[in-house]
Amino acid sequence: MAASGKKTDGRKDIRDVIIVGAGCSGLAAAVYCGRFLMRTLVLGETIGGVIITTDVVENYPGFIRLTGTELAKKLEEHARDYKSVEIREEKVIEVVKNGNIFKAVSEEGAYYGRAVIISSGTEHKKLDVPGESELANRGVHYCALCDGALYQDRPVAVVGGSDSAAKEALVLSQWASRVYMIYRGDKIRPEPVNYERVIANRKIEIISQANVMKMNANEKGFLKSVTLDKPYKGMKEFPVDAAFVAIGHIPLTGFARGLGLKTNDKGEILIDRNAHTNVPGVFAAGDVVDTSFKQAITGAAEGVLAAYSAYQHVSDSRVL
Amino acid sequence: MAASGKKTDGRKDIRDVIIVGAGCSGLAAAVYCGRFLMRTLVLGETIGGVIITTDVVENYPGFIRLTGTELAKKLEEHARDYKSVEIREEKVIEVVKNGNIFKAVSEEGAYYGRAVIISSGTEHKKLDVPGESELANRGVHYCALCDGALYQDRPVAVVGGSDSAAKEALVLSQWASRVYMIYRGDKIRPEPVNYERVIANRKIEIISQANVMKMNANEKGFLKSVTLDKPYKGMKEFPVDAAFVAIGHIPLTGFARGLGLKTNDKGEILIDRNAHTNVPGVFAAGDVVDTSFKQAITGAAEGVLAAYSAYQHVSDSRVL
Repeated sequence: MAASGKKTDGRKDIRDVIIVGAGCSGLAAAVYCGRFLMRTLVLGETIGGVIITTDVVENYPGFIRLTGTELAKKLEEHARDYKSVEIREEKVIEVVKNGNIFKAVSEEGAYYGRAVIISSGTEHKKLDVPGESELANRGVHYCALCDGALYQDRPVAVVGGSDSAAKEALVLSQWASRVYMIYRGDKIRPEPVNYERVIANRKIEIISQANVMKMNANEKGFLKSVTLDKPYKGMKEFPVDAAFVAIGHIPLTGFARGLGLKTNDKGEILIDRNAHTNVPGVFAAGDVVDTSFKQAITGAAEGVLAAYSAYQHVSDSRVL
Repeated sequence: MAASGKKTDGRKDIRDVIIVGAGCSGLAAAVYCGRFLMRTLVLGETIGGVIITTDVVENYPGFIRLTGTELAKKLEEHARDYKSVEIREEKVIEVVKNGNIFKAVSEEGAYYGRAVIISSGTEHKKLDVPGESELANRGVHYCALCDGALYQDRPVAVVGGSDSAAKEALVLSQWASRVYMIYRGDKIRPEPVNYERVIANRKIEIISQANVMKMNANEKGFLKSVTLDKPYKGMKEFPVDAAFVAIGHIPLTGFARGLGLKTNDKGEILIDRNAHTNVPGVFAAGDVVDTSFKQAITGAAEGVLAAYSAYQHVSDSRVL
């Protein structure tokens, strides 16, 4: 009975909800938690989350065009407009459940809450080749829909051969003059329908059995070419204006290992339409969940639904 | 074989997608349809939809505070920013399917599309008593979360006894000095947990077996009282600053009768997490669907998912 709810009664400061992750989803969740007058703590390694790495956001309905940083700032200001919301730039290391109370441990302290919303996002898998990190957002990108329109009538590469990589290539083919899919294997492996689309698309060209070894900058510090491990069309240094790395994402859930959350084979947290996970009191939203089409707006809406469900949960625990 | 796809080949102008309804969901769907370069027609009785009847919107993450009309305008401008999107203020009377092509008939013409997104919204059921329509948004409201914060420390009424009405009363109790639930029946009938909450809430007072017969204005043209069919606390003209009518919604789906869409017992269209309905090529989003927590932001996200799914559908039909 060591983990019973009663043990927590003596704790000084139990918030209604702790939101782990301060990106679009977490901040939108915070807005609604504030509206529900819940005492809310948002903990995030980077306030604003991954959107701040995107130069131009044109796909958050309501804003024709703004920078990722501007959108993040607006969401942050909106969340901070509610007095019951506190936001701290702290990386969460662990979340555990004791009875009905959750404990979130950051690098700077421990916090308690009656509910948890996980909106910790994902990391893009990186190629880990020279030049990649230096050229990030200067020709090296990880999201075709976010950044593809910057390369109107210019040659680009997609690195990867999965279904996601194929979808990135198809999206890019709307803008680019040419899309090279660079894949280490024999044959790209998207879903059949996307495979058909790639093959039917005259702009897309597949470079198989090839690895990108290096990303090369021009004199202005933007990508000018990728170095392959074998020549293609006689060139080992293959010229492209952009390389979209699409070799997968890693959902950031390590800190929640102890909660027993159900995930799919990608490690994404399974949620229902109201952002419930399989663990009572734990809700999830945004890039970390098993939504197939992940956008800032869908993540924000999931955050809102997570806030609603967390409110139900916290109200239930109080009445019952 | 009269309904085979081939019969439609001779038609001059088949769009990729027709969006029925030009509220937040439909306009957000249009933004993404535009991003997917789909030839898109939005048809709506009122561009902007029901949000334009809301004075202050504080719950669309990213905008701390703006009017409903301002938000609608921003979404409309965003959608119009895409050249492949056309928006027409026309009420749709009927949508039918012929083979793989949909025909939408408005009061002004007939339009054809390969996919349809239904975002036609709902109507609030009205009490249909004198004063109600004149005082709309001047004390008479239909959404506690939208408009409740206007009545800080003031007495308000909720008309209705359903679970939704109870939830409206609970939301209002965060702001109002007193919330009167006026219900025609013996005993309000929310879900047990919400019933418990209403009973436990010291601000909420239930006036049962009472009907509102009339809404009365003060000299400035704002609600001052509601007239009951029997006196309560000695008053037939019962003073409140606001009356929130919560006697249900009517999903607007009559035009789609012929499509064979599955709905729940409220008449809401059933969708999955990617806004698919049961009918291939038909997607739905916003207040017209079976989401439990309906907000502008969740409707917008559903619209985005509907656009994504419509894009998949239209691309599939082209390749296959």
